[in-house]
Amino acid sequence: MSVTASLWRDRLENLRSHKFFELIVIAIIIVSALLIGAKTYEESSHFEQVIYWLDWAVTFFFLIEIIIRIAAEKRTLDFFRRGWNLFDFVIVTASLIPIDDSQMVLLARLLRVLRVLRLVSMIPELRMLLTSLVKSLPRMGYVALIMFIIFYIYGAIGSFLFHDVDEKLWGNIALAMLTLFQVATFESWATAVLYPAMEHYPYSWIYFLSFIFLNAFIFLNMMIGIVLDVMQKETALQEIETGEGEAAEIHWLREHVERQQAQLDRIEAKLDRS
Amino acid sequence: MSVTASLWRDRLENLRSHKFFELIVIAIIIVSALLIGAKTYEESSHFEQVIYWLDWAVTFFFLIEIIIRIAAEKRTLDFFRRGWNLFDFVIVTASLIPIDDSQMVLLARLLRVLRVLRLVSMIPELRMLLTSLVKSLPRMGYVALIMFIIFYIYGAIGSFLFHDVDEKLWGNIALAMLTLFQVATFESWATAVLYPAMEHYPYSWIYFLSFIFLNAFIFLNMMIGIVLDVMQKETALQEIETGEGEAAEIHWLREHVERQQAQLDRIEAKLDRS
Amino acid sequence: MSVTASLWRDRLENLRSHKFFELIVIAIIIVSALLIGAKTYEESSHFEQVIYWLDWAVTFFFLIEIIIRIAAEKRTLDFFRRGWNLFDFVIVTASLIPIDDSQMVLLARLLRVLRVLRLVSMIPELRMLLTSLVKSLPRMGYVALIMFIIFYIYGAIGSFLFHDVDEKLWGNIALAMLTLFQVATFESWATAVLYPAMEHYPYSWIYFLSFIFLNAFIFLNMMIGIVLDVMQKETALQEIETGEGEAAEIHWLREHVERQQAQLDRIEAKLDRS
Amino acid sequence: MSVTASLWRDRLENLRSHKFFELIVIAIIIVSALLIGAKTYEESSHFEQVIYWLDWAVTFFFLIEIIIRIAAEKRTLDFFRRGWNLFDFVIVTASLIPIDDSQMVLLARLLRVLRVLRLVSMIPELRMLLTSLVKSLPRMGYVALIMFIIFYIYGAIGSFLFHDVDEKLWGNIALAMLTLFQVATFESWATAVLYPAMEHYPYSWIYFLSFIFLNAFIFLNMMIGIVLDVMQKETALQEIETGEGEAAEIHWLREHVERQQAQLDRIEAKLDRS
Repeated sequence: MSVTASLWRDRLENLRSHKFFELIVIAIIIVSALLIGAKTYEESSHFEQVIYWLDWAVTFFFLIEIIIRIAAEKRTLDFFRRGWNLFDFVIVTASLIPIDDSQMVLLARLLRVLRVLRLVSMIPELRMLLTSLVKSLPRMGYVALIMFIIFYIYGAIGSFLFHDVDEKLWGNIALAMLTLFQVATFESWATAVLYPAMEHYPYSWIYFLSFIFLNAFIFLNMMIGIVLDVMQKETALQEIETGEGEAAEIHWLREHVERQQAQLDRIEAKLDRS
Repeated sequence: MSVTASLWRDRLENLRSHKFFELIVIAIIIVSALLIGAKTYEESSHFEQVIYWLDWAVTFFFLIEIIIRIAAEKRTLDFFRRGWNLFDFVIVTASLIPIDDSQMVLLARLLRVLRVLRLVSMIPELRMLLTSLVKSLPRMGYVALIMFIIFYIYGAIGSFLFHDVDEKLWGNIALAMLTLFQVATFESWATAVLYPAMEHYPYSWIYFLSFIFLNAFIFLNMMIGIVLDVMQKETALQEIETGEGEAAEIHWLREHVERQQAQLDRIEAKLDRS
Repeated sequence: MSVTASLWRDRLENLRSHKFFELIVIAIIIVSALLIGAKTYEESSHFEQVIYWLDWAVTFFFLIEIIIRIAAEKRTLDFFRRGWNLFDFVIVTASLIPIDDSQMVLLARLLRVLRVLRLVSMIPELRMLLTSLVKSLPRMGYVALIMFIIFYIYGAIGSFLFHDVDEKLWGNIALAMLTLFQVATFESWATAVLYPAMEHYPYSWIYFLSFIFLNAFIFLNMMIGIVLDVMQKETALQEIETGEGEAAEIHWLREHVERQQAQLDRIEAKLDRS
Repeated sequence: MSVTASLWRDRLENLRSHKFFELIVIAIIIVSALLIGAKTYEESSHFEQVIYWLDWAVTFFFLIEIIIRIAAEKRTLDFFRRGWNLFDFVIVTASLIPIDDSQMVLLARLLRVLRVLRLVSMIPELRMLLTSLVKSLPRMGYVALIMFIIFYIYGAIGSFLFHDVDEKLWGNIALAMLTLFQVATFESWATAVLYPAMEHYPYSWIYFLSFIFLNAFIFLNMMIGIVLDVMQKETALQEIETGEGEAAEIHWLREHVERQQAQLDRIEAKLDRS
């Protein structure tokens, strides 16, 4: 690498890690978010023109920023090794693709909306929070699977039983599962779902109440499981920490008492001989 | 037992415990679940015919599978000792019973739906989760009883008071308890239940608010009780674990210091004599 | 006290503490509960007559039972010292008062409904649960007071602001607080309360959202407070328990090491002299 | 300061710290709160006149009370150093400003309503509760920010997608976010929001279900985070407390065993020499 290139890289690295640079990037992201919000209001065409140019300015700035951050890296590939950088790169380059097709305009808008997520990648506290959220995902996996099985079974039974009660709510298993989700959130579950069903099948309350209780029961147990999990990790951490304090001192005591024992044995032997 | 039979049993046992065999069974269960889902959609008769034959193929496969698993057991009775095996056996044999009566077709469908639950018995993580769910059932028993007593008392009072307000909601104690369950889930409790009642009895809000607070209060206390319970078990486990570490070392120290004491006594006595 | 009286008291005490006697009382309470439930159904006059006589039979049985329990006590006043006995006595005697006035028939029915609560006083597990519920009441006191202050302030503001929007919902502070409770339970809070208010005052969402967030925030903190409280009590209990184990052994060690120290000092002094 | 002034200050200080004085202040605050409540009822003009004079009497009493409390302070500025005093001072002086403008009458009423909050500053238990509530605010900050970003992104997408479905619910990003808040509270989310949207876009359930799951997931994790936080603080407190007991004794043991070691070395050396 030539000296000039190295010099430029150092300058860019300084720029990148500068607090002021980060604040500007955050400000531009917020401007980008406000632009997206502004676009949802119907305004005069003049205002729309301004937003259009501002939007391209933001896109251009993001492009410059990502180039600076890539160029500041010692090895270009290192940049792509960190997940957040990759996320930023995809968001920025995707919004560069010119989409003129009116069919694809929705996708283009979605990509611009996702630029707001760059706020998460810029603020360390939010990044930590999101990382801990992602970490707790697998813990939820099997509970979600059991939940899905329960929804599927109740959906199938509900679709068989209440098919004729309301075609829109129980027409097929997919509609029935959506209706059951509505029941699980308690939204109009009695007035709009239970009572019409009870007019045809007076005992259908057994179906709904058992479903609600099963859901509540599994949800409660999931909560307990999570609390237990959190506590076990906490206890493990605590043991490691205290290990350096009390436990270590006790171990030191044991070793020294053992050595004293040997010494006392020797002293007693000598006294016996003398 | 003849040698050939024993040889066959070993082969079946290998087959049963083979990862590939388990994956096929899980796949067939999922196919069975999808068939149940497909049946809820109204399709052409040709498609229905395909589903009918697939359904019998699945039933036949499950029969073969359960025969393999029984035959692989050293003693046939051992198979029925484990709850999950019994559950599988009942589900599979029940779906073999030919039900032609149109009245009983619902029961036949229900039995086929329950085959989805075999997924729980096949995946160890789900089996563990369900076992822990069942274990926490008794803990909920007495709280459920108190809840039922409260619902019964409020149901009786509500039925006496609001009998004339809305026959459909408060006609008898069973309807009143269902209405109270609707109130407990906050579904249209104010607009559809409280306000009509308040038009006749302006002070009926006392009835509803006291019921809601009592429910919330008991639910909260139940949650606390569960957290306490979980913590006590956690603490007990921790004590047993740490018992091998710190506590054991302290006990070792005590014993050795006692022995040193005796030795020092002897040394002092010898010095006095000399 | 004469010998015969003492003999009878012993017999009654044996009867009272007999498991079979308790089971009969529980059975009669359940019969009493079922009678109350049956009365809410409109039946023929013949059936009503049967219920009427059964009701008096239950009342009579309860009277006999409470007389047995009072007579079995060595000192009659001891019976009234325990809260649950007093509760039973009030419930039983109150239902003896003949109420013919049609105006008071509701009160008479309420008293009969409360007899179901005797189930709680008969089953020890339920009695324990209720005692622990009552114990946790003061803990909730001050949080309830803060909640009431927030409801009162928002109720007053809401009544001032939305008086003209809906007289039924915001007519005075009492109605406004009831409406706010409906909002707190999320029942039709947006469709029936927020949107009509926003048509008059477009910024009224600030009022509702701030109220909901404040409520959720205080509720969450109350939960944390309770968990903390439960943990502190748990920790205190644990310290007392482990105090007999580890801490005691460490104290023993300290005392003995101190004695060894003195002994070693003496031994060294003797060696110096010799 | 003259002797008379000092004497008066002592008298006022005694008055201020008197339990009876505090009870009177609390009573007057409750009267003030009841007056505010009474004003929300439409009554005859005679009654209104009474309330008007009572209101001024309360305002006057609060003025006197705050003057007493300021005068009782050794240095006047000390009074304003404590947040609660400042809060009381602002509330009392603000309600003294004569507001005749009918436009500002709402503000005047609001200031009078806030006088109810003085109850919190007067009762120590409520003051403690509120302080702990304020302390837990920053903990919620970043979670609230992530929540807001999710609402903003879903609001923008919802506004783009469902603009034509319902102008009132999805007209612009602000309305869309309010609708999403309604969905988050499960209020008519299926009947009034999801189903109309599904008539235009059959796959819009993905949008709503992903939003609900994301919300529930973040809320659950926030709860876990808070429990963890509370536990860590609890553990830290515990360590400090137990530090004076067990840990200190172990440290004492270590020091003494070290000294015994040195002594034994000396004894052994002496025996070798002799």
